Amino acid sequence: MSPSKLDNIQPIDISTFQHESIVYHKQDSSYWFYEKSSESFPGQAFGLKIESVLYHTKSEFQDILILKTTNFGNCLILNGIIQCTERDEFAYQEVITNLPLMSHPNPKKILVIGGGDCGVIRELIKHIKNNDNLIDSITMVEIDNMVIELSKKFLPQMSKYHNHPKLNLAIQDGFKFLNETDEKFDIIITDSSDPEGPAQEFFEIDYFKLLQNCLNGEDGIVIAQSSENIWLNLEYLKNLKEKCESVFNNVGYAQCYMPSYTSGQLGLLIATMNKDINLIDPIRKFSKDEESKLFKYYSSDVHKSSFVLPTWANDYLNE
Amino acid sequence: MSPSKLDNIQPIDISTFQHESIVYHKQDSSYWFYEKSSESFPGQAFGLKIESVLYHTKSEFQDILILKTTNFGNCLILNGIIQCTERDEFAYQEVITNLPLMSHPNPKKILVIGGGDCGVIRELIKHIKNNDNLIDSITMVEIDNMVIELSKKFLPQMSKYHNHPKLNLAIQDGFKFLNETDEKFDIIITDSSDPEGPAQEFFEIDYFKLLQNCLNGEDGIVIAQSSENIWLNLEYLKNLKEKCESVFNNVGYAQCYMPSYTSGQLGLLIATMNKDINLIDPIRKFSKDEESKLFKYYSSDVHKSSFVLPTWANDYLNE
Repeated sequence: MSPSKLDNIQPIDISTFQHESIVYHKQDSSYWFYEKSSESFPGQAFGLKIESVLYHTKSEFQDILILKTTNFGNCLILNGIIQCTERDEFAYQEVITNLPLMSHPNPKKILVIGGGDCGVIRELIKHIKNNDNLIDSITMVEIDNMVIELSKKFLPQMSKYHNHPKLNLAIQDGFKFLNETDEKFDIIITDSSDPEGPAQEFFEIDYFKLLQNCLNGEDGIVIAQSSENIWLNLEYLKNLKEKCESVFNNVGYAQCYMPSYTSGQLGLLIATMNKDINLIDPIRKFSKDEESKLFKYYSSDVHKSSFVLPTWANDYLNE
Repeated sequence: MSPSKLDNIQPIDISTFQHESIVYHKQDSSYWFYEKSSESFPGQAFGLKIESVLYHTKSEFQDILILKTTNFGNCLILNGIIQCTERDEFAYQEVITNLPLMSHPNPKKILVIGGGDCGVIRELIKHIKNNDNLIDSITMVEIDNMVIELSKKFLPQMSKYHNHPKLNLAIQDGFKFLNETDEKFDIIITDSSDPEGPAQEFFEIDYFKLLQNCLNGEDGIVIAQSSENIWLNLEYLKNLKEKCESVFNNVGYAQCYMPSYTSGQLGLLIATMNKDINLIDPIRKFSKDEESKLFKYYSSDVHKSSFVLPTWANDYLNE
């Protein structure tokens, strides 16, 4: 189905809908979505109760499922993995956006790779609307236009700035874009899905090299979700961080609470060439009042504490 | 079944075992435990894949289920709610024990209410074994002896100090114990299950009054799990904190990552009569090397960051 036809779509009849992640529970006649992965997080599952199935398709790149849940609002699921729910998405969006933004001395040009739900765009535009004198232009490169179109329809609070005049949108493979562009960016945010799917190449050393090459000078900062978290596969994270450290001089690992993500958290890798940038203690701080106005999750205290890891994980990853 | 008969018990045949929290999945012939609560956390579920059912009983007080899971080790479940898994229990145990212990100027006498898995006892005894010159005596008051006996058998790493000479164990209702005792304690740790079950009275103002009455002077510190977390029911938490503040002069709310708990986190309420005690920045700090030796989760940085809440929750709970 083409995006232009999205206006006419009807909710799906769940009683006849078949999807491997959706289960019917006889005892209370309820339908549940269960996130499971025998490879990435074996033996554990997270479930959301479904009010209705809003949309399902297999796009050129992935399985896209959009649910209206009973308690988490609308929920975007790619290849069986929750990308965002309306209830808690702000945590992820605010942290992945503001960790680099508050650490960069002069962040003018921002690139977002992925991010089709436009939640990161919303967080960036917030600073433009607030006249923070930070961002001049935003480029977003998303491979799957369907994700953007569906977010416009089903995640309106996330996607509300999808056509903001400061946003240049390219529907293209992020890896290819970085390879071909002559532009340089102050911050590059990789807001991708997990490696199983079209985002696979975003977790390899060649990608970190490409990112570094597209940064505007030493001060440039990149951030990416780490796919795994410290409780699941610390060895993988160590390896990913080492790949990143082979390219960048200054690398940190941060995490934030995300109830609808595996283990209830999101992991992030942040990096820059400039050893003197303190990624942990942001150079740009708002007053408490401004923080309350601008953010729901982020604050300069949250920024700092997001780098504090449990002793065993810190010893393994950072020492 | 009496505790003395625990030596002879056999694993349960899961194919004939019936429990409302256990579901059979035909597609891969697997059995899963699902934690659900239509009252406490409607519309969301956490699942663990089961290797075998080690034990099930309805004790005088509650439904007790012990599972061997495929990826989280052995797991204790009371009334359908996960109390601990061998994989991540250390986070909870270390934080609930060390937040008060590292903030109290001279913690000699410790009382634990609940805590039948003996994980908190293990964390306390660690300091005795390390000659930290902190703890003189520990009293634990657990209502359900069956939980202790089962933990000795199925959670040996948690319960290993159940018969340590510094531990006085009372099998009794915690509320009743506090009402009747003449003893005073420097720290009282309430390591209870959620309000649905025998722990109901631990979340009421009368309980906070009893706790305060049993503290040894102004410096005494109490800590308790909050049952709800900030993502689920912030209003309930605010109300609980206000109850606590009506009794104590100095109250804080902390949280820690706990992948096997609802929303992937645990909330804690900590309180003292002494306004000058800084609950957030501990007075007692170990060197990094000692932290790595003593703790898997806790550190003085973790201590401080556990009080950092997302902006919206901080504004609502603390301002």
